[in-house]
Amino acid sequence: MNKPTYADYVGRMSEVADFRYSAGVLQWDQETYMPVKGEGPRARQIATLTETAHARFTDAAFGDLLRALSGLDDLKDSERRNVVLTFEDYEREKKLPSEFVRRLSEISSQAFQAWIAARRADDFGVLAPLLDQLVTLKKEEAERKGYTVHPYDALLRDYEKGTSVARLDELFGALIPALTPLLGAIGSVAQVDNSFLHGEFPKQRQWDWGLDLLKRMGLDFQAARQDLSEHPFTTNFAATDVRITTRINEHDFSSMTWSCIHEGGHALYEQGLPADQYGLPLGEACSLSIHESQSRFWENNLGRSLPFWVELWDVLTSYFDFRGIDPAGFYKGINRVQPSLIRTEADELTYHFHVFIRYELEKALLTGNLSVRDIPAWWNEAYRRHLGLIVPDDRHGCLQDVHWSHGSFGYFPTYTLGSLYAAQLAKACPPGDFASVLAWLREKVHRFGRYYDSEDLCKEATGAPLDPQIFLKYLTDKYRDIYGLRGI
Amino acid sequence: MNKPTYADYVGRMSEVADFRYSAGVLQWDQETYMPVKGEGPRARQIATLTETAHARFTDAAFGDLLRALSGLDDLKDSERRNVVLTFEDYEREKKLPSEFVRRLSEISSQAFQAWIAARRADDFGVLAPLLDQLVTLKKEEAERKGYTVHPYDALLRDYEKGTSVARLDELFGALIPALTPLLGAIGSVAQVDNSFLHGEFPKQRQWDWGLDLLKRMGLDFQAARQDLSEHPFTTNFAATDVRITTRINEHDFSSMTWSCIHEGGHALYEQGLPADQYGLPLGEACSLSIHESQSRFWENNLGRSLPFWVELWDVLTSYFDFRGIDPAGFYKGINRVQPSLIRTEADELTYHFHVFIRYELEKALLTGNLSVRDIPAWWNEAYRRHLGLIVPDDRHGCLQDVHWSHGSFGYFPTYTLGSLYAAQLAKACPPGDFASVLAWLREKVHRFGRYYDSEDLCKEATGAPLDPQIFLKYLTDKYRDIYGLRGI
Repeated sequence: MNKPTYADYVGRMSEVADFRYSAGVLQWDQETYMPVKGEGPRARQIATLTETAHARFTDAAFGDLLRALSGLDDLKDSERRNVVLTFEDYEREKKLPSEFVRRLSEISSQAFQAWIAARRADDFGVLAPLLDQLVTLKKEEAERKGYTVHPYDALLRDYEKGTSVARLDELFGALIPALTPLLGAIGSVAQVDNSFLHGEFPKQRQWDWGLDLLKRMGLDFQAARQDLSEHPFTTNFAATDVRITTRINEHDFSSMTWSCIHEGGHALYEQGLPADQYGLPLGEACSLSIHESQSRFWENNLGRSLPFWVELWDVLTSYFDFRGIDPAGFYKGINRVQPSLIRTEADELTYHFHVFIRYELEKALLTGNLSVRDIPAWWNEAYRRHLGLIVPDDRHGCLQDVHWSHGSFGYFPTYTLGSLYAAQLAKACPPGDFASVLAWLREKVHRFGRYYDSEDLCKEATGAPLDPQIFLKYLTDKYRDIYGLRGI
Repeated sequence: MNKPTYADYVGRMSEVADFRYSAGVLQWDQETYMPVKGEGPRARQIATLTETAHARFTDAAFGDLLRALSGLDDLKDSERRNVVLTFEDYEREKKLPSEFVRRLSEISSQAFQAWIAARRADDFGVLAPLLDQLVTLKKEEAERKGYTVHPYDALLRDYEKGTSVARLDELFGALIPALTPLLGAIGSVAQVDNSFLHGEFPKQRQWDWGLDLLKRMGLDFQAARQDLSEHPFTTNFAATDVRITTRINEHDFSSMTWSCIHEGGHALYEQGLPADQYGLPLGEACSLSIHESQSRFWENNLGRSLPFWVELWDVLTSYFDFRGIDPAGFYKGINRVQPSLIRTEADELTYHFHVFIRYELEKALLTGNLSVRDIPAWWNEAYRRHLGLIVPDDRHGCLQDVHWSHGSFGYFPTYTLGSLYAAQLAKACPPGDFASVLAWLREKVHRFGRYYDSEDLCKEATGAPLDPQIFLKYLTDKYRDIYGLRGI
């Protein structure tokens, strides 16, 4: 064997990235444009790409290369960090045989199509058999990847290095008991008016408005585009090719608008990653929680703030007729707190009950304390208990999110982590216009890729470790002001 | 080695198809939706998929499998045919190293982007350096693949098994000298009126009309979709996932309408291929000329016939205001013969001069008698000589077609072959409505995949070998009638 070089490493990583990003293009197409009968062949095409990426990445010779490079002392710091992070990934990934990865991919594609069909039929039963197969596979994955305390820890690790059931129990243990009385206090005073958010908002006009907003946020549309899909998402095939999707409800101003801002936040992060690190850890997002901190920073900390809408008021009202509403009233209305059924449309407070319910449900699924067929009943009971809601049907219940059909168990908690990080970043970020805020995020977060783990990045960017009290104080101050609460 | 099985063969072929079709999805996206800065990573992603497909297909062990299967006598006839055709492909493909295939793919992607930029700048010089690299690579490909008479023969074979410079010289030698006096005769009588095709045809209305037309033709939109692109094309990622594209000129009714019908003809062929032969020769189109026969059958033999527009008159006039025009006048106008600059918008007669010019140009490029930088001058002179036209700029000249930027040299002649086959099929096809015509094409052409070669398929379907006189008689009869020609 010739002397191993960093260039060999980059070559293999770029090739693996080609397969992964190609699978990403096929998935994006599957969720945006693919005709329905393309489903079967598409599932096997994505599976072949996924299996090939995995096989090329976990190839023993690549492991030898990584080991050899780890011993070299002439690597630059960024190069060494790439090699170290890749070796960690390699050690985890090689625990899964390529055939297992293929099977997981195939079942996920089928489950995604079943999820679409189940939603159309409003019947969880249509999805249940495939979801059952997926849960079985994810349990097997947890066993193969290994864990010391809880099988769910093994899955959480895929989305959020450094977190665990123990850590999440601690964080939710701080959040939920604090949010519950705040929700109670809000429920005991007069509700704010948000009726102006419901009316007629024509599709094309919303679409144009969304693109305008994204441009103002600083999204580079020569390196991004937006399309429609059943469930909004962000994906990318390079730092210079980022795709976001949205959906439009012609009777609801909120649905598309904050989905655009949210996905726009994700997309700005992807566009801020170093393009010269294609396929390498330093070219990838730090973690899902930091990814989510970026979307929520824009969606909530900026996008549900008063200055944001004061700044955009003339633009907004050039698209839509909000006669009789001023920015202050608009601000109150868009921050109305009210228990509701759909996570993606929840307010900043009740949102975390939605996540907590999914977190508890996933833990129970993984340990076998809950079986797939009992999900609807479990779900509906949890919504009654935590939010006092009656779930009328599965579409508004356990069929609302795409994640499980993708095989993503352990993903939801990163949404709450993201809110915590977002609040902490927002507190640290100097006030300014969109451009200066984006520049700050680029400088403090985006440019690092995976150089730091989430909690270290938080310390570097804000000077302190993650502290859920910052988020709680942010919410309490905000709603005290909006609702005129006393004594909290 | 275990006893080789047909299932092993199908497994490998399906995997190769997964890579090829995935590259197809990435190419489709590149030409429809991809943001411009995605270009660089996309080129390498497609190259990796293309190289991998080639490497998996030309793997020596797969060659051994094919040889072993060829010796088995318990294969079904269709299975044997698949193996025989695959072995032919294998023998040809393995003459190209995978690195060469990768290089060709990368340069093609770059050339495609350069073609877009060159068209925007209206400057062939923007494309020339990459085209020069492509021509060099194609010459190398011809040498590697081998030929006995003309290097162009080696490239023609990729698109049309069984054809050659000798055969094409013979066919064009029959066509061009017959079409020239016919064109002269038309030029000497009063021109028909087609002014009604120029006016205001709003984009959305054209789009809706195009989709309506495609549905009436029998295209299954659960297994197909249409999008917009710079240059209309058809591609597919399975018989159940066919994509067509079009472009819209708001001032010209013809441009989109016949592009839809043309690509619709291609797409109907793809949808008629046996879906259970995924990735196998019997699941692929017979040849490019037969593919083109399907698009031209619909575009011209049906789509420029009087009965077609009599049948659709009420539908057409529900979309557009053609007051003062009747189907007979419409029929004359849409068949107006007039030398023009753009191939895709040419009439059925002058069209073949466009192809002949490209054919002669490609032969000269391959033999080195013409260099890339001299293409515009050569092109413009050929248009002057054959069609009496002055080419005002490269956009309306040698930059009009995407093919060369894709590395497709040897492709254009299949367009003329397609017209000849289409005329012969149209003569054999019993008159009837769209559904009965489509059923006949399915029965006589689509279902066979690559079972027969082009000329054999023609004999099976029409009872006679390819005869260019059928096409010439069709054109002569048609234009004698439309233009009231005498003595021809």
